[in-house]
Amino acid sequence: MQLSKRANEIQASPIRKLMPYAVAAKAKGIKVYQLNIGQPDIETPAEMLEVYHKYSEPVLAYGPSQGLDVYRKSLVKYYAKHNIELEEDQIIVTTAGSEAITFAMMLTCNEGDEIIVPEPFYTNYNGFATMASIQLKPITTYAETGFALPEDTEFEKLINPKTKAIMLCNPGNPTGTVYSKDDIARVAAIAKKHNLYVISDEVYREFVYDGLTHSSIMHVPGFEDQAIMVDSISKRYSACGARIGCIVSKNNNLMAAALKFAQARLCPPTIDQLAANACVYLPDSYIEGIHTEYQKRRDIIFEEVSKIEGVICKKPEGAFYIIAKLPIEDAEDFIIWLLSEFSIDNETVMAAPAEGFYATPGLGRNELRLAYILNEHDIRKAMHIFRLGLAEYKKLIG
Amino acid sequence: MQLSKRANEIQASPIRKLMPYAVAAKAKGIKVYQLNIGQPDIETPAEMLEVYHKYSEPVLAYGPSQGLDVYRKSLVKYYAKHNIELEEDQIIVTTAGSEAITFAMMLTCNEGDEIIVPEPFYTNYNGFATMASIQLKPITTYAETGFALPEDTEFEKLINPKTKAIMLCNPGNPTGTVYSKDDIARVAAIAKKHNLYVISDEVYREFVYDGLTHSSIMHVPGFEDQAIMVDSISKRYSACGARIGCIVSKNNNLMAAALKFAQARLCPPTIDQLAANACVYLPDSYIEGIHTEYQKRRDIIFEEVSKIEGVICKKPEGAFYIIAKLPIEDAEDFIIWLLSEFSIDNETVMAAPAEGFYATPGLGRNELRLAYILNEHDIRKAMHIFRLGLAEYKKLIG
Repeated sequence: MQLSKRANEIQASPIRKLMPYAVAAKAKGIKVYQLNIGQPDIETPAEMLEVYHKYSEPVLAYGPSQGLDVYRKSLVKYYAKHNIELEEDQIIVTTAGSEAITFAMMLTCNEGDEIIVPEPFYTNYNGFATMASIQLKPITTYAETGFALPEDTEFEKLINPKTKAIMLCNPGNPTGTVYSKDDIARVAAIAKKHNLYVISDEVYREFVYDGLTHSSIMHVPGFEDQAIMVDSISKRYSACGARIGCIVSKNNNLMAAALKFAQARLCPPTIDQLAANACVYLPDSYIEGIHTEYQKRRDIIFEEVSKIEGVICKKPEGAFYIIAKLPIEDAEDFIIWLLSEFSIDNETVMAAPAEGFYATPGLGRNELRLAYILNEHDIRKAMHIFRLGLAEYKKLIG
Repeated sequence: MQLSKRANEIQASPIRKLMPYAVAAKAKGIKVYQLNIGQPDIETPAEMLEVYHKYSEPVLAYGPSQGLDVYRKSLVKYYAKHNIELEEDQIIVTTAGSEAITFAMMLTCNEGDEIIVPEPFYTNYNGFATMASIQLKPITTYAETGFALPEDTEFEKLINPKTKAIMLCNPGNPTGTVYSKDDIARVAAIAKKHNLYVISDEVYREFVYDGLTHSSIMHVPGFEDQAIMVDSISKRYSACGARIGCIVSKNNNLMAAALKFAQARLCPPTIDQLAANACVYLPDSYIEGIHTEYQKRRDIIFEEVSKIEGVICKKPEGAFYIIAKLPIEDAEDFIIWLLSEFSIDNETVMAAPAEGFYATPGLGRNELRLAYILNEHDIRKAMHIFRLGLAEYKKLIG
């Protein structure tokens, strides 16, 4: 039996496809420091978990397709704190950021249409694009320049009648790059000139270091009709398993269509939304604590990566990832080797090969993404193993 | 700003689009008996809710993309009880049945490809098809014959090189029709002859009355490569808000691709899966109780509908819906009128207009779907209001 083209073409997640090697390593009794996936070790807020503990409705019922009223009202307050003034109807709650991205792609693009996206980008954009039968058109950015936003001309080279949107991730997964207010204004101006949407993935809004501030696509004046924000609570509240996100826009027509998409799948999970709602009312000290912790981890992992000979890497300013360009040909082979052949004191380390974060074939093969989602001690241990592993691997492959 | 074709074309959910009228009625202090949506009033099992109450992990983390191991292992046991022998890897847990249907459509069809489906069908298939840029090709079935499965020739008329699958809902939403073992074998034979998949939506497996037994597409011998089952816990455990379903197939290639689709969106909600897991271990008496209750409700609503002059309706054998063909032109207008202009003792009733359950334009305009998800007393009350309302409405429209 034949499968569809999209079934044949969809990429295996580079974040998850090497998991069988990790499972095999663990089965051999080896501890694996998992820096491959953005799954923080930070505890989920007790106030959030308490909502699960105290749920007392007798029937676990459908919620509204647009999300629970109580939660959308809270989100209005949350975004106001970030200088994003919204009305409730400009927010639709989604099953994680994943669904918000899928909706944004499908709202703006027909099959065969194109979205421009700076690469490397969050690898799952590829999967969503394949499922939606749309094309991602990458503009390459480089480790050497900290994956800085490409020049206008680079965007304009790719714009054609099939181009419907520019997609940004800010702060960037996997790059850790934070776009400035001017960067965001520049992308909006390009989009304005060519009648494109900007889909802005702002999941890491709070994860901006060194005193920088986050600039949202929703901040750009006069761009209301073209700005689409996608978001998720997974990272900021260490609640990846709750699967709660949202799609936001001030374009009423677009939101009316988004609601129909949302109605088709009925609703996002009910109790998880209530749990997410509690997070909006956490004291400011919660996010400040998270911020301090991740900035420290960022410093540590950058320090550790900088110790490794031949690695190219600029200090990331946001999110909780770092891309390292290695002095070997194939980062994936190296990770598989780390998992299946290498260990120190019965411990090894796992990262995500970066090739899948690029849409241009062949790029990123010598790069990998490290997520600094473990505590200081574990990051230092993991990077120690990584460094020694790389030295031995280089000798092995000659 | 232009929207995509799919954004412009997606239908508003006929189940949910009249909700603003219900909200307005409630704001006026009117009680609305909601028979429009398959949201049971049955209490969610305490054993399930207890899982939320007792969740004790410090981090609410991602689960595996294919679903939690513990839950997939339990599902193997659940299906074995229904004579469906599976291995764990033949099951991928999804975010409700909705995601399972979307995956099934995208796995089998490219953009522009076609799926044959007897109409009226679960209306949200339309939305998923629009999002996936595929075409549903309906074969009309009729209230007068209890929406019996169409003849082979009706299927074969529609089969062309773009046809990739036949979709069934068994027991049927919105028809309540239960396909026999011979019916299922007949569809499988057509699919076999023409190299098509059969996507079988078996969400209402347990809701089969009058001593009939449920026949699964997974029961058909020699059809393993072409059978795709989609499922959900929403109805059987009265847990619509948990958003847990699954896609099942013995076709290894198809499941390998489904896993990649699943990896793109990372995972279904974690605690909700654990809660779903507890349901597998409910005593048999739980489902027996549900079954008895719904069969009773089916009898009551059919008795009540039969009292209404001029209504055409055969006694449904499964699920918890009944389609009534009314002696008026437009059922939607009637429902809006019930919500905005009619009440008895400050109470009114809501149903889902059936037109949206058909893909053939114009069909079903004089039909509506009633979900018998309320208790005996409320169903009788609701249908009483409905009957008097219809009589008055007929006078009004002359």
